[in-house]
Amino acid sequence: MSLSLCRLFGSGFTPAFSLITSRAAAFRFSSTMASVEFIKDLCTPALVVDLDKVKRNAEGMKERCQKLQVQLRPHMKTHKTLECADIMTGGSRRCIVVSTLAEASFYADNGYDDILYAYPLPFDKVERCAELSERLSLFHVLLDNSLALQELRKRPLKQGKVWSVWMKLDCDNGRAGVPHYEPVALQLAQEIWQTEGVELTGVYAHCGNTYSCQGEERIKDVAQQTTTVTLQFMDQLKAAGIHSPKSSIGSTPSCSHPVPDMAKLSEVHPGNYVFYDVQQSLIGSCSLEDVAVRVLTRVIGHYPHRNQLLVDCGWTALSHDGGGRLPTGYAVIEGHPELKLLSMTQEHGRVEPVSGKLDFKQFPLGSLLTLMPYHACATAMMHAVYFVHSKGKIVDTWKPTRGW
Amino acid sequence: MSLSLCRLFGSGFTPAFSLITSRAAAFRFSSTMASVEFIKDLCTPALVVDLDKVKRNAEGMKERCQKLQVQLRPHMKTHKTLECADIMTGGSRRCIVVSTLAEASFYADNGYDDILYAYPLPFDKVERCAELSERLSLFHVLLDNSLALQELRKRPLKQGKVWSVWMKLDCDNGRAGVPHYEPVALQLAQEIWQTEGVELTGVYAHCGNTYSCQGEERIKDVAQQTTTVTLQFMDQLKAAGIHSPKSSIGSTPSCSHPVPDMAKLSEVHPGNYVFYDVQQSLIGSCSLEDVAVRVLTRVIGHYPHRNQLLVDCGWTALSHDGGGRLPTGYAVIEGHPELKLLSMTQEHGRVEPVSGKLDFKQFPLGSLLTLMPYHACATAMMHAVYFVHSKGKIVDTWKPTRGW
Repeated sequence: MSLSLCRLFGSGFTPAFSLITSRAAAFRFSSTMASVEFIKDLCTPALVVDLDKVKRNAEGMKERCQKLQVQLRPHMKTHKTLECADIMTGGSRRCIVVSTLAEASFYADNGYDDILYAYPLPFDKVERCAELSERLSLFHVLLDNSLALQELRKRPLKQGKVWSVWMKLDCDNGRAGVPHYEPVALQLAQEIWQTEGVELTGVYAHCGNTYSCQGEERIKDVAQQTTTVTLQFMDQLKAAGIHSPKSSIGSTPSCSHPVPDMAKLSEVHPGNYVFYDVQQSLIGSCSLEDVAVRVLTRVIGHYPHRNQLLVDCGWTALSHDGGGRLPTGYAVIEGHPELKLLSMTQEHGRVEPVSGKLDFKQFPLGSLLTLMPYHACATAMMHAVYFVHSKGKIVDTWKPTRGW
Repeated sequence: MSLSLCRLFGSGFTPAFSLITSRAAAFRFSSTMASVEFIKDLCTPALVVDLDKVKRNAEGMKERCQKLQVQLRPHMKTHKTLECADIMTGGSRRCIVVSTLAEASFYADNGYDDILYAYPLPFDKVERCAELSERLSLFHVLLDNSLALQELRKRPLKQGKVWSVWMKLDCDNGRAGVPHYEPVALQLAQEIWQTEGVELTGVYAHCGNTYSCQGEERIKDVAQQTTTVTLQFMDQLKAAGIHSPKSSIGSTPSCSHPVPDMAKLSEVHPGNYVFYDVQQSLIGSCSLEDVAVRVLTRVIGHYPHRNQLLVDCGWTALSHDGGGRLPTGYAVIEGHPELKLLSMTQEHGRVEPVSGKLDFKQFPLGSLLTLMPYHACATAMMHAVYFVHSKGKIVDTWKPTRGW
C-alpha cells in the first residue's frame, strides 16, 4: 500500500478555517485514495463505514417517516460529515439538527439551511447564534428557561428577523428541558410566545430514556409515553391560544420502532440510526447486521503465558464508551464471538477468549480483527477521517467537523 | 469576547498536510488570540493548560533525573504538541518517546530527532518506520518477538544504516513485552544482537503496574522491582557478551518517586507528569496542586426538581476515562468538593451535590465551573486546541497532532 496515505491520515489535524481549506483537504484524501483500494489494506486502527448499510439505514428511517407522514429532521451528531448529511437529507441540505455550534457553522458554510441547534442556549454563544440566525433562512435555537429568553431579548436580530425558538420539554428523560408536568412549562411557552422579536417555532423532546429499554415493546412504551405527554402539552398550548408551534420528539430507538400516535407530531429527530451500533442492537433498535461502522485493528502481540493477544486499538480509536460491560468487553469482534476486548490503554487493546485457551495460530501477528463499536457516536468522535467502503472497496473518505 | 475566536476553534479539523499548513494554522490562532485575553472569557467547553505548572512539573522531573544522573527521555503521548515537547526537552528537540507514528512524523517534521517509537512493531507500518530511520539521525523501533525482527530484515535500510531496536521487556506490567523471567527474553536479545542490519540499542520496560498503587511507598516498591528485574536482565545480557544496550524504564508514578537504584539505568521515559491529573494524585505521584490541565465548562441548566445542574461538558470534552468512580464522579470540580459530575452524554454533564440540597444561587446559568480531569491523556485527546495560560491570562494556544 502507498505510504503517502498512511502519512496523511496520521499527520494530525488543523482547524478548517474555511470551506476552501476543508475541500482542498478532502481532495487530497481523494487524490491519494486510489493507492489503497480495499479497507483490508488500511493502516490500523481505522474507522470504516459501510456505505451500503448507511444508505439502507437512512432509507429505512425515511420510509418509516413517510409512512407516518411526519417530517424527518435527522441529527448530525453521530457522524458530523457533509457526505453522510447529504444521504440523511436526501440531498435537500435542509432540515437538520446539530449538537454544537461548530456543526451548525460547518453545515451552514456548506450550503445547509433550516438548522436546529438543539442545545440549551449557552449564554456565551448568543452572539454566534445571532449571526447564524441573520445569515440563514432558518436557524433555530432551543431553550428551557426564562433567563435564556432574556438573553435573546438583549440581542435583537437585524434585518427585521426574529429568533426562531424551540422550547425543550423534558418528557421524563431527565436531562435538559422543563418537566412536562410542571406549570412552569406552559408559562415559559406563553412567555416565549409573547416576547417581541422571538417566535415559538416548536416544542422539542428527546426520549433518551429509550436507551434503558430492552426490546421493541419497551421502546414503544417509551415512544408512546413521550408522544402522549408531548401531544398533551401541545393541547395545553392550543387551549392557551398558541396554535402554531410544531412538535418534535426523537431518539434512534423510538424512531426505529415508531408508534402510530407519532403521526400526530410535526417532526422526529433521530441521528445514530445512520450508523447504529452494538448498544442499539442490545436496546432492540436494530440487528447487528445493520451496524454500519467498524474499527479495524491488527494483532501486534501474542502472550500465551497470559492467554492474551494485543491489538493496535486502544481508547484513542474506540473510546471507553460502554465501560467494557459487554460479555465481549468493549466491543463485539466480528466473526469471533469467542473473543473479548478485555481492556484498553491509550494505544493497546488486550484480547482474550471469553473462556478457554486461545488458539494463537488463528490470529497471526499482523492479522486483522474487526471491532463493532458499543457506541458509534463515541467511536466516530475519535477519528479525523472515516474510510467509506462498499463491500470492502474504499469508495470515499469523510472528514467530520469537531469542536464547539 | 471576539466571535472570530469561537468560530475558529469550533470549525473542525483538517489533517495538517505539511509544516506550512500547520504553522499557518498556529499563526491564525495567535493572530486572533489577542481578542480573548483571559481563560474565563473562552467559549466552553475548553481545555486550559497552566503554563507555570507545566514548567514546574517539567523542571521537577529534570531535576530528579539530573540528581540520579539518568537520561530523561520524555514521552509525548499525553499532549502531542511541539510547544510542550520543547519544554520537556529543554529546547534540545532530542531524545523523546512517542506512542504513534503520527507523533513520530510530526516531531520529525518539526526538527526533532532521536525519537523512540515505543510500540510493538506493527507489521503494516514497517515501511514508514524505515523511511523515518533513513531520514533521521536516530529513529528507534521497539519489538518483543522474533517475527517482528524478520520484518525488519526483509526491509534493510538504505545508506548503510542499521535499524535501531529496543527490546520490550515485560517486568510484570502485563501488557506488551517478553516476560523478564522467560528464557525467550535472553534468546530474543541474542537474536537481535546477531542480526545483520539491526542494532540492539536498548531494553525498554514500562512499569504501568504503578497505576494500581496508592501512595509513595507502594510506587517505590514497583519502581524498585521493575528496576531490579531490568538490571538483572542487563546482567544476563552482559554475561552473554552483549554489553552495549541501554536500559530504560518509566511511568509517571515511578519517575515522580524514583528509587536510588534507578541511577543504574541509562534512561527513564515518563510522560504524563507534565500535566498530571486526578488519577496521578490518587496514586500519589503528585498533589492536586500540581495538576496543570482543566476543562472549563458553563452551567446551562437548573433542575431543582431533581437537585441537578447541567453543564456544557459531555464526554466529547472530558472523555469517559475513570468511569465516574471518583467520589466526585468523572472529575474533581475545582473549589467545589461538595459537587459531583454524576454522568455525561455527548455534550451534557449532570452535576449534583455529593449529598444534600444544591444551592442553585451559587451557580447561576452561564457561570463557569472548572473540571480537573481524571486522566489528562484521555481528556487532552478530545481537544484540537489547548488554551495555555499563566495566572488566567492566555499566553499561547497549542495544537496537538492526532491519528496514527
